[in-house]
Amino acid sequence: MAKLLTEYKDTEHIDSFSLIKSADIRLTKTGKTYLNLIFSDRSGDLPGNLWDATDEQTKSLVPGKIVKLQGVRGAYQDKPQVQITNVRLSEAGEPDNPADFMIHAPIKEEEMNDELSDFILMITNPTWNRLVRKLFSIYHDQFLRYPAAKSNHHAFAGGLAFHSLSIAKLSRNLANQYPQLNSELLIAGALLHDLGKTIELSGPIATQYTISGNLIGHITLIDEQIVLAAHELHFDLQSEEMVLIRHVVLAHHGLLEYGSPVRPAVMEAEVLHQLDEIDAGIQMMTAALDKTDKNTFSDRIFGLDNRRFYKTSE
Amino acid sequence: MAKLLTEYKDTEHIDSFSLIKSADIRLTKTGKTYLNLIFSDRSGDLPGNLWDATDEQTKSLVPGKIVKLQGVRGAYQDKPQVQITNVRLSEAGEPDNPADFMIHAPIKEEEMNDELSDFILMITNPTWNRLVRKLFSIYHDQFLRYPAAKSNHHAFAGGLAFHSLSIAKLSRNLANQYPQLNSELLIAGALLHDLGKTIELSGPIATQYTISGNLIGHITLIDEQIVLAAHELHFDLQSEEMVLIRHVVLAHHGLLEYGSPVRPAVMEAEVLHQLDEIDAGIQMMTAALDKTDKNTFSDRIFGLDNRRFYKTSE
Amino acid sequence: MAKLLTEYKDTEHIDSFSLIKSADIRLTKTGKTYLNLIFSDRSGDLPGNLWDATDEQTKSLVPGKIVKLQGVRGAYQDKPQVQITNVRLSEAGEPDNPADFMIHAPIKEEEMNDELSDFILMITNPTWNRLVRKLFSIYHDQFLRYPAAKSNHHAFAGGLAFHSLSIAKLSRNLANQYPQLNSELLIAGALLHDLGKTIELSGPIATQYTISGNLIGHITLIDEQIVLAAHELHFDLQSEEMVLIRHVVLAHHGLLEYGSPVRPAVMEAEVLHQLDEIDAGIQMMTAALDKTDKNTFSDRIFGLDNRRFYKTSE
Amino acid sequence: MAKLLTEYKDTEHIDSFSLIKSADIRLTKTGKTYLNLIFSDRSGDLPGNLWDATDEQTKSLVPGKIVKLQGVRGAYQDKPQVQITNVRLSEAGEPDNPADFMIHAPIKEEEMNDELSDFILMITNPTWNRLVRKLFSIYHDQFLRYPAAKSNHHAFAGGLAFHSLSIAKLSRNLANQYPQLNSELLIAGALLHDLGKTIELSGPIATQYTISGNLIGHITLIDEQIVLAAHELHFDLQSEEMVLIRHVVLAHHGLLEYGSPVRPAVMEAEVLHQLDEIDAGIQMMTAALDKTDKNTFSDRIFGLDNRRFYKTSE
Amino acid sequence: MAKLLTEYKDTEHIDSFSLIKSADIRLTKTGKTYLNLIFSDRSGDLPGNLWDATDEQTKSLVPGKIVKLQGVRGAYQDKPQVQITNVRLSEAGEPDNPADFMIHAPIKEEEMNDELSDFILMITNPTWNRLVRKLFSIYHDQFLRYPAAKSNHHAFAGGLAFHSLSIAKLSRNLANQYPQLNSELLIAGALLHDLGKTIELSGPIATQYTISGNLIGHITLIDEQIVLAAHELHFDLQSEEMVLIRHVVLAHHGLLEYGSPVRPAVMEAEVLHQLDEIDAGIQMMTAALDKTDKNTFSDRIFGLDNRRFYKTSE
Amino acid sequence: MAKLLTEYKDTEHIDSFSLIKSADIRLTKTGKTYLNLIFSDRSGDLPGNLWDATDEQTKSLVPGKIVKLQGVRGAYQDKPQVQITNVRLSEAGEPDNPADFMIHAPIKEEEMNDELSDFILMITNPTWNRLVRKLFSIYHDQFLRYPAAKSNHHAFAGGLAFHSLSIAKLSRNLANQYPQLNSELLIAGALLHDLGKTIELSGPIATQYTISGNLIGHITLIDEQIVLAAHELHFDLQSEEMVLIRHVVLAHHGLLEYGSPVRPAVMEAEVLHQLDEIDAGIQMMTAALDKTDKNTFSDRIFGLDNRRFYKTSE
Repeated sequence: MAKLLTEYKDTEHIDSFSLIKSADIRLTKTGKTYLNLIFSDRSGDLPGNLWDATDEQTKSLVPGKIVKLQGVRGAYQDKPQVQITNVRLSEAGEPDNPADFMIHAPIKEEEMNDELSDFILMITNPTWNRLVRKLFSIYHDQFLRYPAAKSNHHAFAGGLAFHSLSIAKLSRNLANQYPQLNSELLIAGALLHDLGKTIELSGPIATQYTISGNLIGHITLIDEQIVLAAHELHFDLQSEEMVLIRHVVLAHHGLLEYGSPVRPAVMEAEVLHQLDEIDAGIQMMTAALDKTDKNTFSDRIFGLDNRRFYKTSE
Repeated sequence: MAKLLTEYKDTEHIDSFSLIKSADIRLTKTGKTYLNLIFSDRSGDLPGNLWDATDEQTKSLVPGKIVKLQGVRGAYQDKPQVQITNVRLSEAGEPDNPADFMIHAPIKEEEMNDELSDFILMITNPTWNRLVRKLFSIYHDQFLRYPAAKSNHHAFAGGLAFHSLSIAKLSRNLANQYPQLNSELLIAGALLHDLGKTIELSGPIATQYTISGNLIGHITLIDEQIVLAAHELHFDLQSEEMVLIRHVVLAHHGLLEYGSPVRPAVMEAEVLHQLDEIDAGIQMMTAALDKTDKNTFSDRIFGLDNRRFYKTSE
Repeated sequence: MAKLLTEYKDTEHIDSFSLIKSADIRLTKTGKTYLNLIFSDRSGDLPGNLWDATDEQTKSLVPGKIVKLQGVRGAYQDKPQVQITNVRLSEAGEPDNPADFMIHAPIKEEEMNDELSDFILMITNPTWNRLVRKLFSIYHDQFLRYPAAKSNHHAFAGGLAFHSLSIAKLSRNLANQYPQLNSELLIAGALLHDLGKTIELSGPIATQYTISGNLIGHITLIDEQIVLAAHELHFDLQSEEMVLIRHVVLAHHGLLEYGSPVRPAVMEAEVLHQLDEIDAGIQMMTAALDKTDKNTFSDRIFGLDNRRFYKTSE
Repeated sequence: MAKLLTEYKDTEHIDSFSLIKSADIRLTKTGKTYLNLIFSDRSGDLPGNLWDATDEQTKSLVPGKIVKLQGVRGAYQDKPQVQITNVRLSEAGEPDNPADFMIHAPIKEEEMNDELSDFILMITNPTWNRLVRKLFSIYHDQFLRYPAAKSNHHAFAGGLAFHSLSIAKLSRNLANQYPQLNSELLIAGALLHDLGKTIELSGPIATQYTISGNLIGHITLIDEQIVLAAHELHFDLQSEEMVLIRHVVLAHHGLLEYGSPVRPAVMEAEVLHQLDEIDAGIQMMTAALDKTDKNTFSDRIFGLDNRRFYKTSE
Repeated sequence: MAKLLTEYKDTEHIDSFSLIKSADIRLTKTGKTYLNLIFSDRSGDLPGNLWDATDEQTKSLVPGKIVKLQGVRGAYQDKPQVQITNVRLSEAGEPDNPADFMIHAPIKEEEMNDELSDFILMITNPTWNRLVRKLFSIYHDQFLRYPAAKSNHHAFAGGLAFHSLSIAKLSRNLANQYPQLNSELLIAGALLHDLGKTIELSGPIATQYTISGNLIGHITLIDEQIVLAAHELHFDLQSEEMVLIRHVVLAHHGLLEYGSPVRPAVMEAEVLHQLDEIDAGIQMMTAALDKTDKNTFSDRIFGLDNRRFYKTSE
Repeated sequence: MAKLLTEYKDTEHIDSFSLIKSADIRLTKTGKTYLNLIFSDRSGDLPGNLWDATDEQTKSLVPGKIVKLQGVRGAYQDKPQVQITNVRLSEAGEPDNPADFMIHAPIKEEEMNDELSDFILMITNPTWNRLVRKLFSIYHDQFLRYPAAKSNHHAFAGGLAFHSLSIAKLSRNLANQYPQLNSELLIAGALLHDLGKTIELSGPIATQYTISGNLIGHITLIDEQIVLAAHELHFDLQSEEMVLIRHVVLAHHGLLEYGSPVRPAVMEAEVLHQLDEIDAGIQMMTAALDKTDKNTFSDRIFGLDNRRFYKTSE
């Protein structure tokens, strides 16, 4: 079986199918145009430049296309790249499904779907149960397929569900150890807290921020959806249950500086925020250390104050 | 005509009707109970202690009641107080309307109502016009009677309208000087930006934060009302007009640290935030300097980084 | 059975045995001396003043003594206090063991001892296992009896063990969900991270900071003990295992500003820090909400940025 | 009529007169020298490299010269540049006045001069009037021609006057709405607040900081000039009028962190600071949005916390 | 010889002459007036209340008067105070010079005067020498008698000279160890840096901020005096020597946040700032530790980030 | 005699022996490999690229080798570089000792050794004397040869001793001026404070952080060595002398944010921190100004908040 893009070592010959993730026409210092491409498959990304791109290549080699790529693995300013010797669109009988070349959550979609159903069943409070079911009747598919972010943590297809379900598991375990916590409120909050990302972001491929994502933000966007769902379900927005679920979701960034309009002021809100940080942190460290040699330090991790983490010998 | 409460000088005899703003039963250091009262009229507050309150007095002298107060103006730790010689409920034929004893905006309610109508007429964009009219059909009376804050700036009856209309005037003038500004968006934003305070606060008398005020906050609460109004008017939440008006309102605190979930990213949002700061700042400085002697410094103003301001000689 | 000190309501008569936690001779504004006492039992504290203390009372009513206290529950500046009518030392046949009047961890000492043994057994790495056992051979008893802090979170007898074991449990569960984490390093770190408090603090009663606690601090003090233990066990301080366990303990405050000399740079160090925050946070919120009425806000919690938390209706 | 430099689209042929703003001799990675030029006209800047500059070209193509430029508009790392095909000095009969190629304030110098006179007339307080007239008798011409900054806001010829007069207009309008403000103090402050820039900066072309600009700063430099002018006018530096005008100017950056040696402590000082921020902010946003396509975001604006602003569709 | 005020122990009888530093008429909680007095001598302060002050006492016991004080040393809220039994104005033949009751610099005025002359002689650069001599021809006496601050460090008569000369000594020694430093610039800066305090503060007794002290500040006030002196001496303000000496003085607070309008950008400016911090720090620590028992911690020192310092056993 | 590397001017021919400080194989934008070299001698560094390196060159031109370098001095992006025409390893009879090509402290090693002995003799307190001697019996040679940092201040061979002894001199002088300071504690602290750098850093050539340097840090590493030395000398870790010397060393970074686990809480600790800042600051400014032309500003100095410093004309 063919090697994946990030498995090639320096100077190795690459011969592989991959997805074009981005394609930019650029100018060399001396004024010639060339094509800067980023190839990807489910192992990650590899950039490369096509120095004498024909007009036809410039037109056909666009994001979303599957190509057969040949070249040599090199490095530029310490970053891996491919020196392209040949690149062409995939042909009939060759791989052609972009989804096969995207990074996915480490758990299958069906499995995540089952977990989602199980967690919803654990919410026996009728207000929260109906509210969650109403919202997942609309956003079910996006929840399972969207990334949890444009870059940073869980920035892969299915990342949103993987992250949210992971926090739901942490919530369930924590409520076992600390019975003073309301596990239903925690689980409902875990499932809903980042659901606004499905409106904030453009989708799982070539993910961008939408205009309302930029100008309103995912926290207010999911609050909007909660308000509209409650309106349709004829729930009283001033009831304690509605105020609590909105608060838990609104406050999940923990600090105003991070975009929450209120700081956690209910025990479950504080805890949900901390679990969010733990899961995001572990995912970022794991992803960074996966690319790091033993006994060395990872690249700096933006989402963790630009710290570098040490990979131990075992 | 009787003097107002804050007009009495030290050692002067007080004989005046006033409103009981708060009444707390307290303990002296040696263990005796007494009644700590705050009296107020439209000139401000004056505290005083009733050292040997009877059971009947404890029951009848409660917040909201009008009383006839007699005593001597003194001071305790540099703060004015009244040494009470007599206090009783107002009787038939004497003043009995609490509203007559509250601090009000310096402009009459009818005049503010007229100004509000004028400004709404200036908004010719149909989306914003209908949205604003829809919301004022619900919150018209509260807008004219609520304070703009529990304490801090414009914390008096009618303060919300006085503050909002003042910003609308600044907006109109600014848009004249800088034609690149959209005056309709600015005016609509000025009228709506603090309207969530009518849900966040309990009302004009003995103002407290409501539960949803504390846990959700006035910025998200007015966004909720905008969303529901747009839903009823069948407006598309993704339209540029809806995104802009929501953004301008959401971003009006300027910084995430001050509770806006997004920072201003549209010119009018940045400007509305700055006008809000100017009007609030001038109101706080004016109120503090009104109580300050010439050629001395005011008390520290909490909302202006605890600065003291100098009152000039003319 | 007699009521506990914090169970009395305002104006109720108190007749109770309690421990004198502190006793200060003070001066009234008019220059008379009196005795300011803080009484406590396992429900909490209650202050009171003895206005005409005899010389004999001043000498005998000292911290650590058990007394029979009679008086009336009142309040001074909204804080509960007792108006003392009578107070005398406990006599023969009456309660006389201070330990019976102290607040304790909610789990029994023996149970915590068993949990400690179980967790040590889970550490199969010989370096960490021998190191942990060596240190607990010295600090075993203090670990089970010290508080985790002078004030703030887990400031009660047994708090250190209760807090450390709680984090060990969180560690074990987390390592189940995230197999990329080294559970043995996490558990060893959980058990050792605050053990320096046994040198930093004076003990479980009338807890004070020691001189080395103030000038060196518990983080460096436990590092000192780890270094000396490793020296005696002939471990190489430059070995990865020794560097890792020291790093995890040194970095557990997360930020330099909070007194860690290094920030977490190993995945388990970051996670241990976050679990420490979660357990401390839940304990502080739980303690504050225990004293709060439903549908109201708690007092401000110093260790959580002075936030107040809302107690829900169920 | 010829297009302006910034009006050319990618790949268009440029044939245009322009001013050389800067010219640096540089080295390619492989060690050859080339000439890096920045061309400008009243529409803005365009950089370009002359790869095989002759010695004569290196000597003659220097800042301040007008050249005839021919080439193709391209881009390098997303920034527009020109691929030069030909560049030569302008000849007899062709444009040769650098002032024609500089960006200017949108209002004519004479008009600004009239406005200045009008505002000075509004200052009837004799101390402030004579002080302002004394200073403008010295700095009149520089006031009208200097930029308001080296880069950032109003960094164009005449920017200082344009900015100062704009704030004077805002001051006049604000004092109308809030009669508690002293409009003369505000207007005098508006005219003087940035006048020290005429000493801090080297001039309107190729603007640099002077040594005293760097080591003393424009705020202290204008205070120095005010002190010397007052000295010559035999004004008492301890008079309230002199203290106030100096305070208003010294405090106009609002925060110590921004270089004011005192924070605003007089109402007019606080307001002048806020108007300064509003005018600078609007100018920066306007300049950035002028270069931005509709429905997209501007470049980051350094002077506004690196925020990007959205350009609406109309 | 009579004990000094701060040398009395608790319960000791006081019989002593002292200076009245402040005298306020206050109200007890139950509404009676009393006289709150602060007595002082060269050992420090002692407050006390005169509970039944006659009208004559209220009029005669005013700040600046010397009194014969009798009473008992007690404490109120852990702070020493005197319970007054008798207090009367000093009579003929008794002490009557306020200066004898003020805290002074530990070095005699004449000695400081000699040191000042010596340091001025070390400045051989004619510009700086003449400038310094010009300014000391005006401010010589105030320099020797003013405190260096209202409270905080060197807040005693002669503190300004004591502090400035101490920094001059540090400067001389430092320039010996680091010959790259210009010792004349350092010494001139040391002598002038705080001289503006003679305008900022009202004088050595009952020290207050003046209006120009509050609104302009001592840094700009000494710059003003330097500018005027240079003007009279016909020095060029743009000469390097004038720019340097002004910069060194303007920048001596080190950070903009601390009120310097520019940060140090010349080596001597950076060093002067650091020496200022060292001398102020040592003085504050010394003063605090003088009042602290061995093996305990001092009170918190405001000017050192509210830290407490430990007094060692020898 | 041959010129040193940093003495060559632009376009001059270089013919010189130098040390290879680093050698990296890199890729050009068009995919060819080349060798990026940094040459150095005791005047500083000079980078250069070998565009067509043979395999043999790639293998032999490695860090630590002495080479004969020929080429032309040029510049790339304003930074000096050499355009290499020839480079070969030094041969028999030519220079071959790397130490001759390293930057050294401006004082000879023997002289620093003598100073060290003198300072140790000044410490007459037996605990501190024996402790310091014990530690220098182990780290004597590294102390004299290590740099004080990887980059930043005193980043040259012998920098650690040069910096530590310089602070010891400042300490001795300061204790003369302020007799309240314990000079022995200050000197012992000065000698030990950075000694942990000998464990934190890899050595004087091609200096890197060690693993324990990164994960434990030099402050805790020297504390570890002090603890072990005290253990061997049978000193009581709870004695005041041991607590003080550890505190002074632990607190020398002054702020928690800078990595000290405790803030200075003893006078000598505060002073040692300030002297450390002064010596480091002067060294950084001196080094930067050595490379700066008169009447211009230095490059930004990272360790001094990125400030640039002005070099005066004499």
